Amino acid sequence: MKRVRLGLLGCGTVGGGVIQLLTANRAHIASRVGAPIDIVKVLVRDPSKERVAELDRSLLTTDANAVLADDGVDVFVEVMGGVEPAKGYVERAIDSGRSVVTANKMLLAQHGPELVDRAAKKGVDLAFEASVGGGIPIIRTLRDALASDWVESLAGIVNGTCNYMLTRMRQDGRSFEQALAEAQAKGYAEADPGLDVDGHDAAHKLGVLAMLAFGASVPHERVHTEGIRAIEPIDHEFAERFGFVIKHLAVGKDKGDAVELRVHPTLVPRDTALANVNGVLNAIALEGRALGPCLLSGRGAGDLPTAVSVVADVVDVAYARLNGAAGLTTRAIQVRARPLAPMESVEASYYLRFQVYDRPGVLAHITGALGDAKVSIEAMVQRGGGDASGRPVQVVMLTHAAREGELQRALAAVAGADFVAAPTRVVRVL
Amino acid sequence: MKRVRLGLLGCGTVGGGVIQLLTANRAHIASRVGAPIDIVKVLVRDPSKERVAELDRSLLTTDANAVLADDGVDVFVEVMGGVEPAKGYVERAIDSGRSVVTANKMLLAQHGPELVDRAAKKGVDLAFEASVGGGIPIIRTLRDALASDWVESLAGIVNGTCNYMLTRMRQDGRSFEQALAEAQAKGYAEADPGLDVDGHDAAHKLGVLAMLAFGASVPHERVHTEGIRAIEPIDHEFAERFGFVIKHLAVGKDKGDAVELRVHPTLVPRDTALANVNGVLNAIALEGRALGPCLLSGRGAGDLPTAVSVVADVVDVAYARLNGAAGLTTRAIQVRARPLAPMESVEASYYLRFQVYDRPGVLAHITGALGDAKVSIEAMVQRGGGDASGRPVQVVMLTHAAREGELQRALAAVAGADFVAAPTRVVRVL
Repeated sequence: MKRVRLGLLGCGTVGGGVIQLLTANRAHIASRVGAPIDIVKVLVRDPSKERVAELDRSLLTTDANAVLADDGVDVFVEVMGGVEPAKGYVERAIDSGRSVVTANKMLLAQHGPELVDRAAKKGVDLAFEASVGGGIPIIRTLRDALASDWVESLAGIVNGTCNYMLTRMRQDGRSFEQALAEAQAKGYAEADPGLDVDGHDAAHKLGVLAMLAFGASVPHERVHTEGIRAIEPIDHEFAERFGFVIKHLAVGKDKGDAVELRVHPTLVPRDTALANVNGVLNAIALEGRALGPCLLSGRGAGDLPTAVSVVADVVDVAYARLNGAAGLTTRAIQVRARPLAPMESVEASYYLRFQVYDRPGVLAHITGALGDAKVSIEAMVQRGGGDASGRPVQVVMLTHAAREGELQRALAAVAGADFVAAPTRVVRVL
Repeated sequence: MKRVRLGLLGCGTVGGGVIQLLTANRAHIASRVGAPIDIVKVLVRDPSKERVAELDRSLLTTDANAVLADDGVDVFVEVMGGVEPAKGYVERAIDSGRSVVTANKMLLAQHGPELVDRAAKKGVDLAFEASVGGGIPIIRTLRDALASDWVESLAGIVNGTCNYMLTRMRQDGRSFEQALAEAQAKGYAEADPGLDVDGHDAAHKLGVLAMLAFGASVPHERVHTEGIRAIEPIDHEFAERFGFVIKHLAVGKDKGDAVELRVHPTLVPRDTALANVNGVLNAIALEGRALGPCLLSGRGAGDLPTAVSVVADVVDVAYARLNGAAGLTTRAIQVRARPLAPMESVEASYYLRFQVYDRPGVLAHITGALGDAKVSIEAMVQRGGGDASGRPVQVVMLTHAAREGELQRALAAVAGADFVAAPTRVVRVL
């Protein structure tokens, strides 16, 4: 009787979820694959740790070599996370002719194109649905559903921590610090939250998405990345007043000769599906040349949603292997080095919050600087001023579409003025 | 050199889109499938009609037999629409051992389970991504991405005509008749709009979704189906006041011993992604046991979005055929007759708009009837009344969750009263 034998590299929350789903849906999955799937080895660091009840503990080992060198393993499932030793294990699995399913976004962001190439050359599959958007089937949509289309742009809420915090700030007026404390208390944010709130996690995921959507290999450290630390409750209030919601987005565009990749807080029109993806939920909005707009939303993290994606990949990869078609989906990913469009060339509308002392001529100075740079103003509101408090006035503007380079020129012309009380807040509009 | 030969049954707008996409993406698709895909025959009714420039007109034929009996065809693509003669052609294709890709929702809704069974027994594929939600990859998500999950419930905006009309009514205060005239002028509604505005098209699509999500074979004519004719602009205003948007939804739930399937206008909380899917866009929201919530949105119709889905199916089916694995995805669809939960057992909150003459004791009568049926009221607003016009008063209530049977009992107790000016409007809340 044919069967497909899995080697699990790691057995934390996602790995536990994978074991539970493979056990609970064994017969159904066997009918999908054409053969049952058996876990035959599980690599862990601590064999004494408590794990899901469905795990046969006799499969546990701490010896990576015993798992990777085992010819009895057909497919490896890497759910360890982190770059090393995961990278070495994945490479060894590929080099020995076995397909790999991984949920490891950091590994993919840093080494995705080379690992895809390695797998393609070896004729095995490298599947990574769970690396972006948890349970959201975004990778297979980019890979399979859009087999005959071109993705022109994408915009994603891909970090649940940021989305949760921004949602709390907007809906309940929390400060950044309060929202972060809440996220940490609920287990949505790490003790060291920098990877999330400074946008690096989102940049990693944008790298993975860009590889599939635009065939672009761009080192994630070159992606323009802003986090959400600079957003204050007052920005949510002004955004609301203009008809927008502030979301932390990963944005990608295929400009033909270059790709535009950037991660930053963004004003999203309130009456759109994307603006109403709240809390820890993630979402990715695509614009396909033939397809038009398409949005996928769901849980971006969590053991079971992520495990659903891992198992979907296991089913695909096992099926391909049984049918002698391993490597086909991986070979279809065509990645090349593509130039990154410089931020100065980005075209967007902008939300600008100037914090200035209330003196004669201030508004003329600001509007003059914007006008000189050919940045035109669509709307303006002002808060404070007209009293003797001497506190800074908030002057908030929404611009028409402008080039980032021009806008920065205008802001530089304002920055040095003596009426400026604090740095100008700049948020791009989707 | 291996290749996969397609026979096109029909060549209207979707068929034309398929030809365009297969031509424009020929090399990429060949790398995905492992062999190039060639269209070798195209069945049409009128060979003199103008068609897409990419079509080789020498492939056209009006002779169905010449296409279906051609052993040189590997895969048939049915884009004719309608039940007959499409059904006979699909059956003949299956019986002769060829896989079929179809975009035909009416055919699937009426004969899906028997056609799936026929294909599974013959060991060929029957793929139908384009039958629901145009370019939205909902079928493959239900089939592939959720290989290890159970769908507990779904709610979909699956009819673009209804969604466009409701959007116009809500955003611009249009009447049903005005919104319909606009939809017809834009080509979003047929001259005979009944299939769309009375909910039958949505019921067809719910049948297809229920087959995949719940393994349920339920004749679509047994699905409780309401259209949008009874919704008035005033209902949108009241819904807004309560924090909701009115959407026409196809709702399905797996109750374990039965499935609940219903199509009707629904109040959807305003701050959700589903409520903000506007115009002709479609969306399907799922709740998976392991996955949690998941929403997919996009264009529900149109030649190119639909063609993207058809071509994605062609790629899958061609790939399976080349690798000797045809029929596997079809065999994995496990369909059985499942009992339909009676509407009286449905549990929901309700929006109720009573149209009554302003007389003493009216409110006591209504609230008494609801109380007797154990339906409790969450909120109430009243419009009109207190003047001498004698015009009916609108009394609008939002109830807590109640059983439909109880609610109908309460409404029956009100219906006969002499203060009732017009039938009570009932809209379920999601």
